Amino acid sequence: MTDPQDTTSDRRPGGRTARVRAQVLDAVRAELAESGHEGLTMEGVATRAGVHRATVYRRWRDVAGLLVDVIDAAGEVDWQPPDTGSLRGDLTALNQEIQESLVVRPSLPLALMAASFQSEQAARAQTRLWADRYAQCEILVERAVDRGELPEDTDARSLLIAATAPLYHELVLLRAEPDAQLPKRAAEAAALAAAAGAFAGRNEESP
Amino acid sequence: MTDPQDTTSDRRPGGRTARVRAQVLDAVRAELAESGHEGLTMEGVATRAGVHRATVYRRWRDVAGLLVDVIDAAGEVDWQPPDTGSLRGDLTALNQEIQESLVVRPSLPLALMAASFQSEQAARAQTRLWADRYAQCEILVERAVDRGELPEDTDARSLLIAATAPLYHELVLLRAEPDAQLPKRAAEAAALAAAAGAFAGRNEESP
Repeated sequence: MTDPQDTTSDRRPGGRTARVRAQVLDAVRAELAESGHEGLTMEGVATRAGVHRATVYRRWRDVAGLLVDVIDAAGEVDWQPPDTGSLRGDLTALNQEIQESLVVRPSLPLALMAASFQSEQAARAQTRLWADRYAQCEILVERAVDRGELPEDTDARSLLIAATAPLYHELVLLRAEPDAQLPKRAAEAAALAAAAGAFAGRNEESP
Repeated sequence: MTDPQDTTSDRRPGGRTARVRAQVLDAVRAELAESGHEGLTMEGVATRAGVHRATVYRRWRDVAGLLVDVIDAAGEVDWQPPDTGSLRGDLTALNQEIQESLVVRPSLPLALMAASFQSEQAARAQTRLWADRYAQCEILVERAVDRGELPEDTDARSLLIAATAPLYHELVLLRAEPDAQLPKRAAEAAALAAAAGAFAGRNEESP
């Protein structure tokens, strides 16, 4: 729990700052996994991380600050969207990744979604993370357009939401049992709709 | 706050029991709307309802009991799925209803979803309510099959989830600004996919 080096500034860029952050965020993830957002305290995190409480308070201020930083850290991971060679393959792989992250126990994404219902700051961080991830995935749609699989004016975000939303709806809100076929089925349904022009143009006069 | 008739049994079937329940559940909804799940207390509900605290404790036991009963009461409303004459029309009307319920402030469905992340009992009640509502909506798909709009072996639930999930995903999890076109666009995308056989049969060998 004590940190002999804590008399030095933890604002200093480089190794120690990054190490302390990694320790603290690991502790936040572990505490969230064990007892959820309700069980998260500055003291519990400091103890588990082996970092002075004063450091945790100074740098993260409160539990919301810890949550925001865990969500921001998720966005800093060098994640790449799948590239399988077909839109269906890509969307299926993306959905499989989403399903795995939601059915594993404990599930960090699920804990962060739950926390975002209780903390406005966490909700905003979560919203930024979602926006970044969906923007990163637009490349899947661009590639499919380039391959001639989709109309040129396909709205990438709408298609990505249609493909992935059933996973979140079933597993997060409806709390359904995981269905091994769902990632593929949802991906194929969205790809079929997209190929038929469902996400093309303004869509008011879609067929 | 006081209830001069509380010396009589509130277990007695009929008028008084129903009236007390209505008062208490109205109070729960109002408290949820004002301050969310965190602000919900047995005392606050009793005071607002003008019902003895002892009655509230005896009948609902704890905050989770109140939440469960509010969710159960939502399921007792005589709700009917839309019947517009076409699958697209029905799904669009359903989605418009969902969107309205989620963007109105305060939104009771949103408050109950938030609460279900903090109470296992509320989560189970919520899951039952979703299951009932989706089962009720299967008639939309049956009618569309009868009209020849869809393959006979279309899986109704999968289609309904595909049509409605983007609304919940955007408005509940992604906290996107409401998009007036989304109910129709999501409905049409799901209808297009369904007509192309996306939800037919086992789906492993879908086109």
